[in-house]
Amino acid sequence: MAELAAVLTPGQVAVDEPMRTAYATDQGPVLDPQLPLAVVFAESVEDVQHVVLSCAKHKVPIVARGAGTGVSGGAHASAGCIVLSLERMNRILQLNVDDETAVVEPGVVNADLNAAVAEHGLMYAPDPASYKMSTIGGNVATNAGGLRCAKYGVTRDSVLALDVVLADGSLIHTGHQTFKGVAGYDLTALLVGSEGTLGIVVGVTVRLRYLPRDVQTVAAFYPDFRAAAAGVLAVGKARVQPAIMEMLDAGTLAQLDELYGSDLGERGQALLLIQTDGFGAAAEAALVREVLVAGGATMMAEANAEAERLVEMRRSSRGDEVDNEYRVGEDVAVPRSRLVDYVAALEAMAATHNVQLKVVAHAGDGNLHPTFWVDRVDMEVDADAMARLNMALDDSIDAALEMGGTITGEHGVGQYKLRWLGLEQPGPVRELEHRIKELFDPAGIFNPGKAI
Amino acid sequence: MAELAAVLTPGQVAVDEPMRTAYATDQGPVLDPQLPLAVVFAESVEDVQHVVLSCAKHKVPIVARGAGTGVSGGAHASAGCIVLSLERMNRILQLNVDDETAVVEPGVVNADLNAAVAEHGLMYAPDPASYKMSTIGGNVATNAGGLRCAKYGVTRDSVLALDVVLADGSLIHTGHQTFKGVAGYDLTALLVGSEGTLGIVVGVTVRLRYLPRDVQTVAAFYPDFRAAAAGVLAVGKARVQPAIMEMLDAGTLAQLDELYGSDLGERGQALLLIQTDGFGAAAEAALVREVLVAGGATMMAEANAEAERLVEMRRSSRGDEVDNEYRVGEDVAVPRSRLVDYVAALEAMAATHNVQLKVVAHAGDGNLHPTFWVDRVDMEVDADAMARLNMALDDSIDAALEMGGTITGEHGVGQYKLRWLGLEQPGPVRELEHRIKELFDPAGIFNPGKAI
Repeated sequence: MAELAAVLTPGQVAVDEPMRTAYATDQGPVLDPQLPLAVVFAESVEDVQHVVLSCAKHKVPIVARGAGTGVSGGAHASAGCIVLSLERMNRILQLNVDDETAVVEPGVVNADLNAAVAEHGLMYAPDPASYKMSTIGGNVATNAGGLRCAKYGVTRDSVLALDVVLADGSLIHTGHQTFKGVAGYDLTALLVGSEGTLGIVVGVTVRLRYLPRDVQTVAAFYPDFRAAAAGVLAVGKARVQPAIMEMLDAGTLAQLDELYGSDLGERGQALLLIQTDGFGAAAEAALVREVLVAGGATMMAEANAEAERLVEMRRSSRGDEVDNEYRVGEDVAVPRSRLVDYVAALEAMAATHNVQLKVVAHAGDGNLHPTFWVDRVDMEVDADAMARLNMALDDSIDAALEMGGTITGEHGVGQYKLRWLGLEQPGPVRELEHRIKELFDPAGIFNPGKAI
Repeated sequence: MAELAAVLTPGQVAVDEPMRTAYATDQGPVLDPQLPLAVVFAESVEDVQHVVLSCAKHKVPIVARGAGTGVSGGAHASAGCIVLSLERMNRILQLNVDDETAVVEPGVVNADLNAAVAEHGLMYAPDPASYKMSTIGGNVATNAGGLRCAKYGVTRDSVLALDVVLADGSLIHTGHQTFKGVAGYDLTALLVGSEGTLGIVVGVTVRLRYLPRDVQTVAAFYPDFRAAAAGVLAVGKARVQPAIMEMLDAGTLAQLDELYGSDLGERGQALLLIQTDGFGAAAEAALVREVLVAGGATMMAEANAEAERLVEMRRSSRGDEVDNEYRVGEDVAVPRSRLVDYVAALEAMAATHNVQLKVVAHAGDGNLHPTFWVDRVDMEVDADAMARLNMALDDSIDAALEMGGTITGEHGVGQYKLRWLGLEQPGPVRELEHRIKELFDPAGIFNPGKAI
């Protein structure tokens, strides 16, 4: 603490219990509650370097953190750690309109970057549901996805270069300022998604895309979720690439109705929300409507604006609920052809284990977010409830892997999903990852026990 | 040789001099001519593992090779090496139409994969100019770009998973079969572009895209190259994302006229070839024409088909000439806003050093391919010619870096560009790369002296 105080102002170091508690966890389930020794608010690259050097010297773990909106526990405090918040490093350092790039500090909120570039007709494409709160640094740490990834790619596809503080306190710059560049190994891609275990990202050069001239939204109701999943494949077969293709099940519709006073649940048991964008948006939307109707969908009659409101509701639904020990949101992805089978398997699991289930999916990517839960009241009368919840979760992971899927499409492994990582990645791959971790961080101070 | 013969058939090992010579180099300039001890043609993963184990045991370097169309010397033989050709491993193992993915052996030719998937309305997007000859494995090794990268991304953006033989002969699988996946570190991205220095890629899972329903081609002639470069920025400002945006200078037009009997050089001193695709192709092309005419372009009057023929000419122009010691094709990229300045700088360099210059550019990416050359006759009468050529090359690299660019947009560092890598990447980054190399390949048998 004395060493930190030598460089940082008192306002940059919090040791009081309310602050330590507030910064002890992200929005993921907590398996191993820990309080950090302190919360440190970096305001410059030099601050980060100083914190890293001090922590390295005393072998104190560092858990870097953006807005704490992660849902896998990647920013949960480790035993005896410092939580290093980067939220005050929130400046857009460069906005190169003609180059269609920007250089930002890690604490810049995704929505703020988008607002700043929108006036130039540009957008930063990756749009996790937390985009109004989450930071670019956090998005980089998890290689965040979002709604429009099937068309525009994930965070890694929009990150050109990184400034990174390594475990020895040194600062390196990886990547390139140009759209293309293949000099040396792709350290940038290795660091994106490494969840703060290899270094602390203190600067991000991103590629921007064009704000689409036209956006068309199609809302299609189905009698069941499986029929909606078949609709996703039909759109693919029509060779239309929507920007957004979200699938919501009956449970999710009921939740939205409760939150927003809508009547979605009366219209169908599943909703497929599709947005096309760009110069061909209207033609694409017309074809999408045609194939969905042919597949048994009931199209929403209201104007485009009403369907867009649904997308906004879906987009913002994260944050309205937070996972806890009774409710766990999953993040598997399966090859697109298995969407229908996987949804059927999920429904069977929920029935078998007598737990509740709702599902939303970024269906264009085959990326599903099933949420299993048991009610708190169940827990009190039924000691088995938690075991049943965990069995359903384990089954959902096994089924995804069996179908050629992954345990995490976009949320990251963090702390919570480590128990499943070995099912996806065999020993030799994990060993290679641990050796890379050791190479970057021999003392193991960066976010120990996460990601790999 | 005896060990190799224990597993491989005689037809899989060539030791005669013509074969060793044929496989000693790729299409890059040769600085250090070496003959391999043998050329080995792997036909299976097991073959590759056997070769790696044998070579590891005897510390014999392995230079993996696809079609040998690289232009940076990444597949040039090292002293005392085996060249391991993967061209016979050319099967498409899976074509998952509904998943929009394919699994291929490394020797599959890019164009063959595209032909196989086209009948399903799909395409494999990365399209290096060598696509008719080059292999997916070679494309992965160099993270190959191409014409339509600005819209569809480079090789890395289309590779989901890899099967890789490591230096200890073991086989690992990295990545995921799904479009999205963030379990563990992104080893796939680290391996893409590593030019055979970290392992031997024996299987590639790729993501496919939709063949566009409509393609529109715009050909615009300009009085000079700088005006064409300004046209590129104007299209960007109109917020149109073409699939292809190629810029050809007067020297390139003269070359095409000579090859194809066309009259491009009479129509202008520079040509901007733009292709829009998808449902909005016609609307995009109309807007492109509008902004280009406003910028002083003379639009080609002929029908779309004629302009398409120009794209095909441009696409295939690689292979019509091969670099040698008198002619070196560069591959820099600069931020898009610097295209005009960079082209002006190139012209000044050619004048200063009295060398010839022609330039083509994947202008949407800011990726330029200037070629500097001196005539063979100059060499005979002018001992200085080579020194002047090299000064021009060095200047072109310096200028690109000064403008925030890179020494290689898509060709790779290989052997030829190592002399410039230190100008782009400072010592600590290069050291990190070498330590990663050491981690994967402690004995240094994989393509030594390349890439990093």
